[in-house]
Amino acid sequence: MDKTARWVKSRFGYTFAEAGLLAAALTHRSADGPNNERLEFLGDAVLDCVISDIVYRRRPAANEGELSRLRASLVRDATLAEIADALGISDYLILGTGEKKSGGHRRNSIMAGALEAIFGAVYLDAGFAAADRVIRRIYAPLTAELPDSEELKDAKTRLQELVQSDGRALPVYELEKVSGKAHRQTFEVSCSLEADGLRTVGRGLSRRDAEQQAAARMLDKLDPGE
Amino acid sequence: MDKTARWVKSRFGYTFAEAGLLAAALTHRSADGPNNERLEFLGDAVLDCVISDIVYRRRPAANEGELSRLRASLVRDATLAEIADALGISDYLILGTGEKKSGGHRRNSIMAGALEAIFGAVYLDAGFAAADRVIRRIYAPLTAELPDSEELKDAKTRLQELVQSDGRALPVYELEKVSGKAHRQTFEVSCSLEADGLRTVGRGLSRRDAEQQAAARMLDKLDPGE
Repeated sequence: MDKTARWVKSRFGYTFAEAGLLAAALTHRSADGPNNERLEFLGDAVLDCVISDIVYRRRPAANEGELSRLRASLVRDATLAEIADALGISDYLILGTGEKKSGGHRRNSIMAGALEAIFGAVYLDAGFAAADRVIRRIYAPLTAELPDSEELKDAKTRLQELVQSDGRALPVYELEKVSGKAHRQTFEVSCSLEADGLRTVGRGLSRRDAEQQAAARMLDKLDPGE
Repeated sequence: MDKTARWVKSRFGYTFAEAGLLAAALTHRSADGPNNERLEFLGDAVLDCVISDIVYRRRPAANEGELSRLRASLVRDATLAEIADALGISDYLILGTGEKKSGGHRRNSIMAGALEAIFGAVYLDAGFAAADRVIRRIYAPLTAELPDSEELKDAKTRLQELVQSDGRALPVYELEKVSGKAHRQTFEVSCSLEADGLRTVGRGLSRRDAEQQAAARMLDKLDPGE
């Protein structure tokens, strides 16, 4: 058994029947040969399914929105990269020369993609049940204590709920300005609570980001201690 | 066996051990009692996983983008609603009075959601392998002949590929104007091919829609016969 297979056995509790699948899962598209793009596509879907099952059972009273936010927090790139890094994935990644030189083995998207690809490879190698076992084992430290639904809400959602709970009118978001050339545009959005006479402004590289920033600033204004 | 269970047996090839799961899967949130929102969340993920596996195996040469577009075409609400309608789901849906009166049993989102919820219910009732069998059976008419990758590309992608194949500079999209009040804003985006001195304008309720329209108009200009 080679070094990579030993690592997968000890950390994932799994031994590949088809060694080529594991090699492909660890190969970034910057390298030659079969890479992990397709396996990542598959592994992403398998992971979503297993995590959906976990949050569904663990939160019997949560509605669809709460389940979606909880799942999103567990499967987003930053979370995957953190797990992959803790597993020491960097030592086993296969990258092209350019990516290697620029530190690609520590880049979040590359580590996260390779981890998803490993899940996809286990699924192909031995089926859903095997991938399910591996994912639950790898995710155990995170699923042991799931975050609270309230913590996962974004600023716009929290602001809307706060305002509604008081029976006040909903915040109004308005795009105020777009500046810069195509692909580098900056958005400026205002958030107004007319009943309170309050107004904040947010900026971002997308309209969505600008709205979230404006909402976060409004939450600060309403409850500076929060 | 009641009428609904007989329908599921004949069309889905499945008999529920836990009849309550089937009832919940068919219950829209407008009705009283346990509804299908949570089951839809779960079924959506199970469906994505099974369809990912199908497209992965059936298109061994497709890249991640092609696989994603193919999967999206198979799991989007319109496709699900068409399948659900052909299965005669409307006769078995449980809706609140208001939804019933306004024709909710034929609404795409309601039919699609109930079908996904049935997949989720089968998964809970008997596990992944059972849901996998049911989904493959239900999807057989669509997966028998998968659409071509080229057909699934959006206008921006097709324009970019056309321009790149000729070695020309990429199209430049620029947000020209935003009009209207918050939540009802209209976006106007231009698409320019500098080398050709061509420019088109698209409008839409989102920036994305406006860009797609501008790209579609540019494709028309470049090849009016297409």
